[in-house]
Amino acid sequence: MRMVDIIAKKRDGGKLTTEEIDFFIKGYTAGDIPDYQASSLAMAIYFQDMDDQERADLTMAMVESGDQINLSKIEGIKVDKHSTGGVGDTTTLVLAPLVAALDIPVAKMSGRGLGHTGGTIDKLEAVEGFHVEISDEEFVRLVNEDKIAVIGQTGNLTPADKKLYALRDVTGTVNSIPLIASSIMSKKIAAGSDAIVLDVKTGAGAFMKTDEAAEKLAHAMVKIGNNVGRRTMAIISDMSQPLGYGIGNALEVKEAIETLKGQGPDDLNELVLTLGSQMVVLGGGAETLDEARAKLQEVIDNGKALEKFRTFLENQGGNGDVVDDVSLLPQAAYEIEVPAKQSGFVSRIVADEIGIASMLLGAGRATKEDTIDLAVGLMLRKKVGDKVEEGESLVTIYSNREDVEDVKEKIYANIEIAEQAEAPKLIHTIITE
Amino acid sequence: MRMVDIIAKKRDGGKLTTEEIDFFIKGYTAGDIPDYQASSLAMAIYFQDMDDQERADLTMAMVESGDQINLSKIEGIKVDKHSTGGVGDTTTLVLAPLVAALDIPVAKMSGRGLGHTGGTIDKLEAVEGFHVEISDEEFVRLVNEDKIAVIGQTGNLTPADKKLYALRDVTGTVNSIPLIASSIMSKKIAAGSDAIVLDVKTGAGAFMKTDEAAEKLAHAMVKIGNNVGRRTMAIISDMSQPLGYGIGNALEVKEAIETLKGQGPDDLNELVLTLGSQMVVLGGGAETLDEARAKLQEVIDNGKALEKFRTFLENQGGNGDVVDDVSLLPQAAYEIEVPAKQSGFVSRIVADEIGIASMLLGAGRATKEDTIDLAVGLMLRKKVGDKVEEGESLVTIYSNREDVEDVKEKIYANIEIAEQAEAPKLIHTIITE
Repeated sequence: MRMVDIIAKKRDGGKLTTEEIDFFIKGYTAGDIPDYQASSLAMAIYFQDMDDQERADLTMAMVESGDQINLSKIEGIKVDKHSTGGVGDTTTLVLAPLVAALDIPVAKMSGRGLGHTGGTIDKLEAVEGFHVEISDEEFVRLVNEDKIAVIGQTGNLTPADKKLYALRDVTGTVNSIPLIASSIMSKKIAAGSDAIVLDVKTGAGAFMKTDEAAEKLAHAMVKIGNNVGRRTMAIISDMSQPLGYGIGNALEVKEAIETLKGQGPDDLNELVLTLGSQMVVLGGGAETLDEARAKLQEVIDNGKALEKFRTFLENQGGNGDVVDDVSLLPQAAYEIEVPAKQSGFVSRIVADEIGIASMLLGAGRATKEDTIDLAVGLMLRKKVGDKVEEGESLVTIYSNREDVEDVKEKIYANIEIAEQAEAPKLIHTIITE
Repeated sequence: MRMVDIIAKKRDGGKLTTEEIDFFIKGYTAGDIPDYQASSLAMAIYFQDMDDQERADLTMAMVESGDQINLSKIEGIKVDKHSTGGVGDTTTLVLAPLVAALDIPVAKMSGRGLGHTGGTIDKLEAVEGFHVEISDEEFVRLVNEDKIAVIGQTGNLTPADKKLYALRDVTGTVNSIPLIASSIMSKKIAAGSDAIVLDVKTGAGAFMKTDEAAEKLAHAMVKIGNNVGRRTMAIISDMSQPLGYGIGNALEVKEAIETLKGQGPDDLNELVLTLGSQMVVLGGGAETLDEARAKLQEVIDNGKALEKFRTFLENQGGNGDVVDDVSLLPQAAYEIEVPAKQSGFVSRIVADEIGIASMLLGAGRATKEDTIDLAVGLMLRKKVGDKVEEGESLVTIYSNREDVEDVKEKIYANIEIAEQAEAPKLIHTIITE
């Protein structure tokens, strides 16, 4: 088998066999196939696409390129959730205890954040004492006993994907549905999930700028998952503006706690119930999405979800009292309001730019080595569609420095006020198969 | 300027600017742009093509990537001919003295052969004493005095093309019209030609298997030449079977001499007159192709073309008597006939496979380091469309080894005899602008 023949076959619109895809991924991971052949194949795939079988084969070849987490010692169906990335996305913090409260096991492997999207571990570390340095045995025990635990990423997962992604980034081949879908799915599968729920973001703050593109990607991932024996569902959700109000680590934990109490922002609440319903159905906790939703609402209303969060935090060394008293979270030295310069309706909040404004305060990392300030961030006071009077606050800045003119400037540049505006629809599509 | 943006622009069907193409070629030649970005761009060009301006820019960027031969000390318009490669293609050996006999300067830079297509220098070295090791000054003096000289390839011509071609060969991006056309034209232009005549081969033995593909390539090259100030013409000619009868170095020199005497094979004769007419017109020796053709026929008929060949050989140390007595050329030890196994009409002679049969005898190089046997080769006795009786010779093998069963086998496998067959048309298209 020769790589150049595989490239030519795909270039001419042919279908690659399982063996050909394995040959490529094995050879590329081992360094036997050079970058210049891999990039040329990636560009041919960009133009000629891959069919369902090829996508499944590519995903599994990447899964098999490295370690695979074995969650077989954990009882039940392990359902994982993946978001394609957004700003102020507190979903995981709420979903994990919420679903666990229904005895669906949440064995979460998570990472730290880079850029303006925070990582789940960073956010959880805003709770005093909380840590993810627990042994594999402890992790398994906690999930079996309390249905919830989080550890940091371990092992050499999907090295083929890491290598290929870095190459795609510099060769104009990132934006290809089969390549994006197999990249995401390979990581989830290698991490040991039995079933997967996908939150594909769409809009200005998301990688997929249109519903059409987001739906294509979602369908591609759902097909891959189901074709390789992992039940998968997806939703398309709005990321034209940040999710919820809080952007920043402690601020998002506070918002998560409020949401677990049933007092969170409408959009975050709705998203959590939608994704949570899919997780509960896939985890075998309900027959239908409606039944699952009712059960989730019940554990919010009766306080079980909040108690699960407390247990989870305490199990991993955190101060569980935070669920009763959010002032125990790190506090910023300054709270500075950003008043509206005119009256009207908020018509636009550019999600990624607002994320960068929060990063300027120290809430995110520009490079892997940066340390972050857990206390700082932004609290939106208005969202798209809200009425606002001149002088009313648009955003509260939580800062540990007094001069925040740069942040204010960025906020003003990225929040627009018009005479009329409507709130965007949050859940665009639900894809269950 | 970033290479990844250039790749993405071409991928999305954009038109690259002169500056972007220069940035790519300069950076790639210098090693600043890695192979994996160049191959990804090549694949994007494969799918998205390049317009006339981009093709001209790419050609000139490659010309400027290395040395350029300065032929300004040679008087007159220097016309060069390029063939896309065939089997038994003796054209250059005949054309050079023929055109020079009309006082059109032929300042030929030539190479040695690799694979089954022989190089012009290899063929000329079948004449005792002939050599191309002459100084640049001597080369210029010979062309000015006698209008003809040949030297080996010197200087670092089009290093960008060399590097890019080697990369394309292993990344499935050879077969792209803008990339092939710019590659060929950059070499001709760097070699100092004022005007260029192109012989684009079509058919089973050629790189371009169909007339449509060959015409696209020919038009692309003619456009590039004219766009960068080199008048260029082209023809599409048949390479479904070998050209002429002789395949092998001494055998082709013999055939060239016969053709210069007006006694050559019909197809070779016709091809030489067609290409020669274009060269004479471009060189300013005639107003029309018809006028040029008549003048060429005249120097064949009056012996001036043959005398020019003698002068040329003698100027470069060769034994000129060979034009009167072809038995002075190297002779093979054995002449072995390959009799037809049935009667009928020759319906197919697979050009490249017959070339490989000749290579098996030692007439060509498999690697650059191989030495070749100038005496050996094949002389076709029948061509496509010829009637043949069972037992009549199809081919004479000229060999220096007695056992040629392997060669015979290859010949039988690649010459077909049917009940009916017609000779293919030689000149398919003439492209003058």
